[in-house]
Amino acid sequence: MESKEEQLRIPSDQMKAEFFRILLRLGFTTERAYKCAEIFTLNSIEGVYSHGVYRFPRFVKSIREGYIKPEAVPTLIHRAGALEQWNGNLGPGPLNAIFATDRAMEVAAENSIGLVSLANTNHWMRGGTYGWQAARKGYVFISWTNTCPNMPAWGAKDPRLGNNPFIMAVPYHKEAIVLDFAMSQFSYGKMETFRNEGMRLPFIGGFNEENKLTDDPGEILKSWRPLPAGYWKGSGLALLLDILATVLSGGLSTHQISTCVSESNISQVFIAIQLKSLHNFPSISKSIDLIIKDLRNSVPENENSPIRYPGENVVLIRTENLKNGIPVSKEIWEKIIKL
Amino acid sequence: MESKEEQLRIPSDQMKAEFFRILLRLGFTTERAYKCAEIFTLNSIEGVYSHGVYRFPRFVKSIREGYIKPEAVPTLIHRAGALEQWNGNLGPGPLNAIFATDRAMEVAAENSIGLVSLANTNHWMRGGTYGWQAARKGYVFISWTNTCPNMPAWGAKDPRLGNNPFIMAVPYHKEAIVLDFAMSQFSYGKMETFRNEGMRLPFIGGFNEENKLTDDPGEILKSWRPLPAGYWKGSGLALLLDILATVLSGGLSTHQISTCVSESNISQVFIAIQLKSLHNFPSISKSIDLIIKDLRNSVPENENSPIRYPGENVVLIRTENLKNGIPVSKEIWEKIIKL
Repeated sequence: MESKEEQLRIPSDQMKAEFFRILLRLGFTTERAYKCAEIFTLNSIEGVYSHGVYRFPRFVKSIREGYIKPEAVPTLIHRAGALEQWNGNLGPGPLNAIFATDRAMEVAAENSIGLVSLANTNHWMRGGTYGWQAARKGYVFISWTNTCPNMPAWGAKDPRLGNNPFIMAVPYHKEAIVLDFAMSQFSYGKMETFRNEGMRLPFIGGFNEENKLTDDPGEILKSWRPLPAGYWKGSGLALLLDILATVLSGGLSTHQISTCVSESNISQVFIAIQLKSLHNFPSISKSIDLIIKDLRNSVPENENSPIRYPGENVVLIRTENLKNGIPVSKEIWEKIIKL
Repeated sequence: MESKEEQLRIPSDQMKAEFFRILLRLGFTTERAYKCAEIFTLNSIEGVYSHGVYRFPRFVKSIREGYIKPEAVPTLIHRAGALEQWNGNLGPGPLNAIFATDRAMEVAAENSIGLVSLANTNHWMRGGTYGWQAARKGYVFISWTNTCPNMPAWGAKDPRLGNNPFIMAVPYHKEAIVLDFAMSQFSYGKMETFRNEGMRLPFIGGFNEENKLTDDPGEILKSWRPLPAGYWKGSGLALLLDILATVLSGGLSTHQISTCVSESNISQVFIAIQLKSLHNFPSISKSIDLIIKDLRNSVPENENSPIRYPGENVVLIRTENLKNGIPVSKEIWEKIIKL
């Protein structure tokens, strides 16, 4: 077990200011640098450090290497009814995804449901970000992305599927219920976090290079052989999500996406449904309350671990990090401020 | 281990004729009896016996007990843009689902995407049936249903979530790629099949009544404590699918659905996307071919188990069962012909 690294607590405004400063120097306009800095900071405030502060250096590297074009914006390829296909033009993934989410909501405001696809975009960091974005405005949100090949199909040894994160979100009072999961039992982000903290995974998470099942996140990060969540189920869902992202966007599929080093030119789908369009709109909030209340009445296996809905912890972590600053390893923060 | 029961091979036409005869006597019109008999037979031809021939006696029982109304048809509650909410009026689940799938395709033919929800419907038997129905006509299909409470949330002891099957389908030559999975690692149908054949599950599938993890399907069928697929992932997805089915249909949620004995008044969502609407329509078939080709290039862990796409086995089983008849335990078939 590695020794625990020294941790800092960086106030969110200071973190955002650093990201903003760096992005401005990389060729972002003021508005886009700010928006992008905001997303990386928000992901960190809400506890998804692997796709916030810890991912920022890699994001900068991809910009410097030309895989991400700071000023590229999506352009419309095709519109047909309540469906639109856009080209992401290799712009920054989070900015493209924010745009596509907004656009899906606009289409849904007209048609009750809207589907927007993005070809040739980049990693959106944390998919849940867009779930919160849409749900807070009163929309159901269903979205997914493909990725580079980073997971073997069930029964296979070599990674040919992406772990293709899938998002479902729904408004919940002034917050949201947001499910955001990758098709591997543990996401690469989560495995990196466990490895960085010198911890083992709570369950077997994949095969090591010697072909043995292991709970050592470092070994799986080396082998690229995580287990699909639910074995054949996560494997099948990963395949279908890739097929649908490819087909609906007209973009590249997992096996065509360059390499996992750059992972650019990916394909994404954003579906928004306007709750206000539904006949039962007035009673929706009450319906969800009753479902969550019933869930909370579950008898927990461990008395100290009450049953929570997806996204519930985010609110707790956000409050804590806004108050005390965002926890970051000193080593990584010092690397960032030198960027 | 139980002794293997005597098996018959019933020609599909004979099976369909029996189902048709029985349904006519239960108050179905000729056309509806035929359509319903066809679905139960098709599910059996395609190897999903648990939701075909083995489920038929329970379907008849639910009709006799009044939970399923043979002549009820869906009625439109609300239409808004590319979204429609229908009341299933407790009609037969398979007939309601066929109707809703057709209707989602009609809406998608006008708007590129169409969403149809059903409140107050009944068990649709095998969700994949509707995936094949839509994909064969050139539509992407995304659909799910809620169920009675039959799975504990991750970390809980008592079943408060449904295992809420989720379907994704896409056309593939003249067939389809169809993913159809319940949120428990093993569906109740699959566990019943294993139990009926006296086999253990290939992996741990849930807790028994003594609170111990087990691969004995009979014990899990008694405890109602299957493990969610992917642990917290399947648990979260089951919750979101229930919330969305409830919200989008205005129908009942899992915790409100009567009991697991009758399991009526369930809620379903059907989304169809017309491929012909897409700018890349001419190259879609080629894109999917390349994805499947890459998948097949996987190095299998076991040389005798090539990697297959979801739905691939269906074609093999269908061919076999059309040729040799549908395998059914003699005991159950004799029970059916006496209905």
